[in-house]
Amino acid sequence: MIASSSLELIALRGGLGAVPGVRLAGVHAGIKPRKRDLALIVFDTPQSCASVVTTNEIKAAPLLVSAAHLRESPTMRAVVCNSGCANACTGERGEHDARATARQAATLLDFSPAQVIVASTGVIGIALAVDRVQRGLERAVAQLDSGAKAAFDAAEAIMTTDRVPKLAAYAFYHQDRKYVVGGIAKGSGMIAPNMATMLAFIATDFPLSTAALAHALGAANDDSFNMISVDGDMSTNDAVYAFAPTRPDRAEVPAAFEGAFNAVALDLAKAMVADGEGATKRLEVRVTQARDVEQARSIARAIINSNLVKTALYGEDPNWGRIIAAAGAARAQLDPQRWSLFANGKPWVGVGGIELLSEAEAHRELEPETVLVELRLGLGQARATGWGCDLSRDYVRINANYRT
Amino acid sequence: MIASSSLELIALRGGLGAVPGVRLAGVHAGIKPRKRDLALIVFDTPQSCASVVTTNEIKAAPLLVSAAHLRESPTMRAVVCNSGCANACTGERGEHDARATARQAATLLDFSPAQVIVASTGVIGIALAVDRVQRGLERAVAQLDSGAKAAFDAAEAIMTTDRVPKLAAYAFYHQDRKYVVGGIAKGSGMIAPNMATMLAFIATDFPLSTAALAHALGAANDDSFNMISVDGDMSTNDAVYAFAPTRPDRAEVPAAFEGAFNAVALDLAKAMVADGEGATKRLEVRVTQARDVEQARSIARAIINSNLVKTALYGEDPNWGRIIAAAGAARAQLDPQRWSLFANGKPWVGVGGIELLSEAEAHRELEPETVLVELRLGLGQARATGWGCDLSRDYVRINANYRT
Repeated sequence: MIASSSLELIALRGGLGAVPGVRLAGVHAGIKPRKRDLALIVFDTPQSCASVVTTNEIKAAPLLVSAAHLRESPTMRAVVCNSGCANACTGERGEHDARATARQAATLLDFSPAQVIVASTGVIGIALAVDRVQRGLERAVAQLDSGAKAAFDAAEAIMTTDRVPKLAAYAFYHQDRKYVVGGIAKGSGMIAPNMATMLAFIATDFPLSTAALAHALGAANDDSFNMISVDGDMSTNDAVYAFAPTRPDRAEVPAAFEGAFNAVALDLAKAMVADGEGATKRLEVRVTQARDVEQARSIARAIINSNLVKTALYGEDPNWGRIIAAAGAARAQLDPQRWSLFANGKPWVGVGGIELLSEAEAHRELEPETVLVELRLGLGQARATGWGCDLSRDYVRINANYRT
Repeated sequence: MIASSSLELIALRGGLGAVPGVRLAGVHAGIKPRKRDLALIVFDTPQSCASVVTTNEIKAAPLLVSAAHLRESPTMRAVVCNSGCANACTGERGEHDARATARQAATLLDFSPAQVIVASTGVIGIALAVDRVQRGLERAVAQLDSGAKAAFDAAEAIMTTDRVPKLAAYAFYHQDRKYVVGGIAKGSGMIAPNMATMLAFIATDFPLSTAALAHALGAANDDSFNMISVDGDMSTNDAVYAFAPTRPDRAEVPAAFEGAFNAVALDLAKAMVADGEGATKRLEVRVTQARDVEQARSIARAIINSNLVKTALYGEDPNWGRIIAAAGAARAQLDPQRWSLFANGKPWVGVGGIELLSEAEAHRELEPETVLVELRLGLGQARATGWGCDLSRDYVRINANYRT
C-alpha cells in the first residue's frame, strides 16, 4: 500500500508566483514617490479565504472593508494591497476609499467588489489617493503574470521599511499529485508590542473549504506570525489572508498540506525577523520542558520582546539575568528553582543560577549572527520557539525618522 | 472652627533625611569599584511597614527575605540596600546572603534581624559579597545622620544607571502639628516592559497602623510608580517600602497625609522618568473622558510604553498614528469614532482623524523638552496620567554595554 500523501516538502522559488492558478503584479502607482507601491493578486478560480487580523481596537479601513466582503461573499477572486499609506484613522472617508479600491479592481477584472480583499500599509492618518490606485490597477492588470518575477514585484510593492521582499513556497504530494503552497509578506521592525505592520498573503492550488483553510491558518499562525508578534499588541493594519480553490466538502487537511502551509508561514515570519529594522543579529528562543504549549509560547514571546534582552544581544553582553527576568515577567507560572539555560546547545546557567560558561565563553556564544537560546523550565514536555532580533542604534535612527 | 488638617503642602529639601526620627547613610562598601554602593536607613522608633513588590515570578533573594521579615515582625527598625549586585537568580546562597546582611545590621544596631528590610539592585546572577557589606555597614552605622547630606549619600548609594540621586519630601499639618513625608528612590531607563529596576523607600513621622499605611501606599502607587511602569512586567528586584511610627489604632489617614504621601511618590516617579536612560525628552500622557480610571490608566500606560511613540518623540516626528495605534493595542475598549488628540493643550487631531495642526505646527509641539499629549476618549469622566520619555540611540548604547 502506498501512502496517499508524502510528507516530503520541496522548497520552491517564486513565493505566490509558484502557485498554479495565481497571477500577480507589483507596480508604481504614485502613492510613494518612486518605488513600487501597489500589488494585485488575481485567482483564476473562486477561492475559499480565511484571515487572521489585528486585535488592535483601531482597525484600518481596508481591514473593515475586507471583513465585510468576507461576510458578503463566500469566495474571493483578487487582492489589492498598497504600501505608502495605511488608510488607518481616516474615518468614513477611509472606508469609502477602501471600497472604491475594491470596486476599481472588480470592474477591471469583471468580479464582484465583494470578491476583492483590500489591504494597506504605511503611514497612519493620511488619505489614500484612489485616483492613483486606479491608474496603478490598470497597469497592474496589464502586467498580471505567474512566476517568480511577478511575485517578486508584488512582494516589493507591499514593502515599507523592509529591506528585502519576502517570498516562500513549498510543494507537497497528495494522492500522487503535486500541489503548491506559496506566499508573500511584508514586515520588519521588532514586530513586538505595537511595533511595525505585518501583512501576508498565502495561497495554494489544493482545493479546500473555508473552514479547513481557517483551521490550517490558525494553527500555522500560532507557531509562526504569533511567535514573532504579540497577540493583542498588533498594529492597526496587521493581517494574514489565506486562499485555496474553493471545495466546500473538503473539511480535513492532509498532513502534507499542513506541513507545506506551516513551512511557508514560518519562512515568511522568520524573514520578517531577519529583516528587523536595524537588526544585526537574530535570536531564536526555544522554551522547552514547559507544562503546556501556552506556557512555552508566552515565555518565549516575553523573551524575544524584551528590549533589555535585545540590547544585550546587540552588545553581545552575556547578561543572562535579563533573559530570566523577562521570562519571569511573563507570569506564566515559571518555577524559579527549576529552570536552566543553554546557549547554542551549550549549558549556560544550571538549576539554581549556577554559571556553567565563563563570561568570556558566554560572550563568544553571542557573537554569531544567529544565536540560539534554550530555556528549559523543568516542568513538563511542551515546547515553543520564538524568533527575534537585536535592538540596535539603527532601529532608533530608522524609527525616529520614519516619515521625515 | 479651625480645620484640623490643612491641605497645604510644603516642599522640603532632603528627602528621607527631612523626616524626624530617620537617620541614614550611604557609603562605599566595595561592591562597586569606586562609587557609593550601600545605604543604611535607621528608624528611632518601631515602624509600621507596608510594601509593594514586583509581580515578576523571578523574585530576588532580598525581596523574599524581606517578605519573610514582614510576616515575622510587626514592626521594622532599619533598611539595608546595596547597589552593584541584584542578588537575584542566586539560589539558596542568595537567600542566605540576604539573611546574613539583615543579621549584620541587626547586630550592629541591636535590633532583631526580622526588623530589617533588605534590598539589592544591580546585575542579576552574581553573589553578594557579604564580607564587604559587613565592612560597609560598620562604616554606615558610624556615619548615620539626619538631614539632606545623609539622604543624598543614601540616594546615591542605591543608584545603578541613574545619573542623579532622587529625593522628595513634603510637610503637612494635622491638628496644628507639622509632619513630614520623605523618600529616596532609584530607577531610570524606560521602566517599561521588563525594563530597569526601581526601588523606593518612603517614610513619615506621622504615626499609622500598618493597614492604613498599606492603603495609602497602594493608592499612591497606582497613580505614580505604576504609571511609569507596567504592572506584571516589573523586574526581579522592584519594590517600594513605606514606613511610619507604629500606631495600631490609627486606621484612617487624613487627606493632608495622603496629599503629602502622593506628592512624594509622584515626584520620585517623575524623577525616574526624567532620568530615563539616554532620554532627551519627557512625555506626559493624559487620557481623559475615559469610562473609568482603569481604562484611562491602561491606555496611558500603553502609549508611554510604545517604542514607536518613544522613537517618534526622539525624532520629533509628529506621527500621531503611532499614539493611536498604541492606544488601540491596549484593548481597553476605546471607541475608534470618538477619540481626539491634543498636543500641549492645542487640538491636534479631531474626531474622525481630522488633522487640526499642520505637519510643521505639530512638529513644533514636539520640540520642547517636556511634551504633553492628551487623548480624549469621549466616553466618560475618568482620567489618568502616565509619564514617559523618548527612546534615543543612547538608550541602546547604555543597555548594550551595561556590564562591559
